[in-house]
Amino acid sequence: MSEHTKEIEKEFLEYVKKMQAYNEALGLIYWDLRTGAPKNGVDQRSEVVGMLSSEVFQMSTSEEMAAYIASLSGSENLSEITKKTLNECKKDYDRNKKIPVKDFKEYVILQSKAESVWEEARAKADFEMFQPYLEKIVKFQKKFIGYWGYEGNKYNTLLDMYEPGITVDILDQVFSEVREAIIPLVKKISESSNKPDTSFIFKHFPKDKQKEFSLKILEQMGYDFNSGRLDETVHPFATGLNPGDVRVTTRYDEEDWRTAVFGTIHEGGHALYEQNISKRLIGTPLCGGTSMGIHESQSLFYENIVGRDFSFWKHNYNVLKEYGDGQFKDIDLNDFYNAINESKPSLIRIEADMLTYPLHIIIRYEIEKGLFNDEIEVKDLPKVWNDKYEEYLGIRPENNAEGVLQDVHWSGGSFGYFPSYALGYMYAAQFKHAMLKDLPNYDELLASGNLKPIQEWLTANIHQYGKLKKPLEILHDVTGEGLNAKYLINYLTNKYTKVYNL
Amino acid sequence: MSEHTKEIEKEFLEYVKKMQAYNEALGLIYWDLRTGAPKNGVDQRSEVVGMLSSEVFQMSTSEEMAAYIASLSGSENLSEITKKTLNECKKDYDRNKKIPVKDFKEYVILQSKAESVWEEARAKADFEMFQPYLEKIVKFQKKFIGYWGYEGNKYNTLLDMYEPGITVDILDQVFSEVREAIIPLVKKISESSNKPDTSFIFKHFPKDKQKEFSLKILEQMGYDFNSGRLDETVHPFATGLNPGDVRVTTRYDEEDWRTAVFGTIHEGGHALYEQNISKRLIGTPLCGGTSMGIHESQSLFYENIVGRDFSFWKHNYNVLKEYGDGQFKDIDLNDFYNAINESKPSLIRIEADMLTYPLHIIIRYEIEKGLFNDEIEVKDLPKVWNDKYEEYLGIRPENNAEGVLQDVHWSGGSFGYFPSYALGYMYAAQFKHAMLKDLPNYDELLASGNLKPIQEWLTANIHQYGKLKKPLEILHDVTGEGLNAKYLINYLTNKYTKVYNL
Repeated sequence: MSEHTKEIEKEFLEYVKKMQAYNEALGLIYWDLRTGAPKNGVDQRSEVVGMLSSEVFQMSTSEEMAAYIASLSGSENLSEITKKTLNECKKDYDRNKKIPVKDFKEYVILQSKAESVWEEARAKADFEMFQPYLEKIVKFQKKFIGYWGYEGNKYNTLLDMYEPGITVDILDQVFSEVREAIIPLVKKISESSNKPDTSFIFKHFPKDKQKEFSLKILEQMGYDFNSGRLDETVHPFATGLNPGDVRVTTRYDEEDWRTAVFGTIHEGGHALYEQNISKRLIGTPLCGGTSMGIHESQSLFYENIVGRDFSFWKHNYNVLKEYGDGQFKDIDLNDFYNAINESKPSLIRIEADMLTYPLHIIIRYEIEKGLFNDEIEVKDLPKVWNDKYEEYLGIRPENNAEGVLQDVHWSGGSFGYFPSYALGYMYAAQFKHAMLKDLPNYDELLASGNLKPIQEWLTANIHQYGKLKKPLEILHDVTGEGLNAKYLINYLTNKYTKVYNL
Repeated sequence: MSEHTKEIEKEFLEYVKKMQAYNEALGLIYWDLRTGAPKNGVDQRSEVVGMLSSEVFQMSTSEEMAAYIASLSGSENLSEITKKTLNECKKDYDRNKKIPVKDFKEYVILQSKAESVWEEARAKADFEMFQPYLEKIVKFQKKFIGYWGYEGNKYNTLLDMYEPGITVDILDQVFSEVREAIIPLVKKISESSNKPDTSFIFKHFPKDKQKEFSLKILEQMGYDFNSGRLDETVHPFATGLNPGDVRVTTRYDEEDWRTAVFGTIHEGGHALYEQNISKRLIGTPLCGGTSMGIHESQSLFYENIVGRDFSFWKHNYNVLKEYGDGQFKDIDLNDFYNAINESKPSLIRIEADMLTYPLHIIIRYEIEKGLFNDEIEVKDLPKVWNDKYEEYLGIRPENNAEGVLQDVHWSGGSFGYFPSYALGYMYAAQFKHAMLKDLPNYDELLASGNLKPIQEWLTANIHQYGKLKKPLEILHDVTGEGLNAKYLINYLTNKYTKVYNL
């Protein structure tokens, strides 16, 4: 490599570092806005967000960036980090540059209008109010796919934004397997006379005690409080500003402690990923989870595979009792376990239990695929949606607020995002299967409150790489195979057969 | 004004708005670093601070800025805001551009080294360790004065950075009056047999109760919680990110409630200033306090002139009692009032009472002036310092940690800053005198816990203008005269004569 190229590589990395620094500042601003920023300062803060975001956007599509890409692409002997950073930048550059500025501006305005219209439409359960906006958004996205191009299926281009490597072919396969396995299971449970008593879950549990318990579990998981903190918010999230500062937020419901406890475990799973990314990647776009799906695999692994496991509660149920207000006194561990694993069909995705959840996602996937392949029209969405809920879950929304209008995603044009949630679940089950080979004492670890080896395994196999590996590359390296739905199906079948004594 | 100039004015204001946006992001990062940012993220966060600060610095000295200054200076019909924004930018530009890049770089490195050496030297009470660094810093500052030029006295150039318009001539005059008045008063108090009993101050006062009381006082002051919040920190401060987001921080000492209570009132005074700056100034460098001294006048006004006033406690002593732990039971209002106004000479500035405080400042002023007029050498500072403490306060430091090494300011090259503290106190007393003409019922307002009219008066006369008016312009507009030490002298003399029954 020539001295000249070395110099350009160095400059390029400095350039990228600046973009990351601005993104980190933005990350802190978002965290602050969602955890207690004074409301009268929000308008001006939005200006700051706008300035910083557009600076990052401009840097990602600048002539300088184009020059870096042109001079470094194909260079021999670039470091692995530079090479992969360059790929990320190039992907961004291409995606953003291919959209004419005029279209992009119109689209941004449409997005922000659509989101506020959606909010009102949902409140009024009025789909027709939202319909023209959704139609325009879909039209724009189709136009963008035209600019970007596609392979195999138009919808693949959208999937690629959230889960590189995942295609309609793959999803059709795994989702149909999952659907075929879960629907009968859900039906059997509905017909079963075994119904867990869950009434104790809704007894008063003081917020500060919930917080203390949540902190205890985070600590058990291996969350590093020198590299993070737990705050309160309305819509919980985790955010990795850098690996040394990964913050978790949660929401407390004093009449349903599951919100905070399982929510914190979920966000804690995301946070462990971000805390354990290799420090070598700091200052590059590789310093983050590799995809939405792999990220979700970490949160769902902890929330559900660990957090709703019998052995986990063997250890932690007694701890929970100490913090509770006496509501667990007459509930034995088995009854407790069955109650937190209750499953019954429901209309709202974010309130769904962990068995029916994938069906909510599959419905959205099928609809999105249909939209982008011109098989479904926006105006028909309410009916298509309701029919699918009736077919898969046996229940039908009574209005569009609890149906097609329930999620914010489409109003922001985030098509292709929903599948990540179910992919994460499949990845998680597949990782668990691989983990058991290395940690045959997995159940004992859980039963003794020793979760550290689990985090270490995930760090060694997944976390540390950040975006150095693509999702399917990680999956293959860890499990020796491609995406395979059978692990999730087995997990769910075994678990719910036992819980409901089917 | 030509269309062309209008266009440039608009562009210039956009440019400046971006700088302000970056400063706001920096402000939030600093607040976060001091109120609970996870420690492992701090190194990388410092990189972010570095990137953003140097961007702002570059923008302030760019060719683009030079071009705006050149094309807009002297333009007729610019708005007042544009004109004064331009002046601020020009001042910054000139100051920064006149220092050769090489000098500036060396100086920045020296500063950061000097601060860490100072920290160690103070811990070891070892002045000789710090001396060579301080010598270099003074040398650099003298060199800078050479680049910047000066009028009348070299030290004026440094004063001008913190308190535009204030000169050695003015300070010599007012400080000598204050000195001549306070020293005999301090002496009389030392010799008086009246010593307030302060033991009740050091009885346990739970932190959460101190917080509740502090919040109550902030509310009484007119602090808007929709435009701010109160957090905990080690070294309290207030920070105005924008007028809708002005945050106060405080420190709780459970064995001395004065720390939090008077600290919060002090920072609350700063915060009221920033919350009430006209919204027209948002996005310009005019959106902030006009000088260090005027800022300090607001905090000292509230902390001392309001917060240590008898009428204020007529209302609030009963409130305080509700929050306390029984320690005020046998203390009547008079005893309480005398105790919180205790005065006795001490060595550490930040622990000084409100009578002796100005002497600490005058000592520093005299030393700084001597240094920059080649009348004092750095190596002689410990002796000069100790002699002055003995002469003015009647006490002599036993080591340099409680003497010349106590303050951080000089290690960062902040010469010219100290006088602001005493100026603020003089401004405050002078404002109070003017306020009484408009609010003849001032004592009743305090005694009834109705502080709102006081904030409204300060907003109408001072806060709203931000940097639209210079410090002495505000002083003149509000009081009809220039800086006059007699108001502070009268205030202190009346107050302490009464407290100590002299």
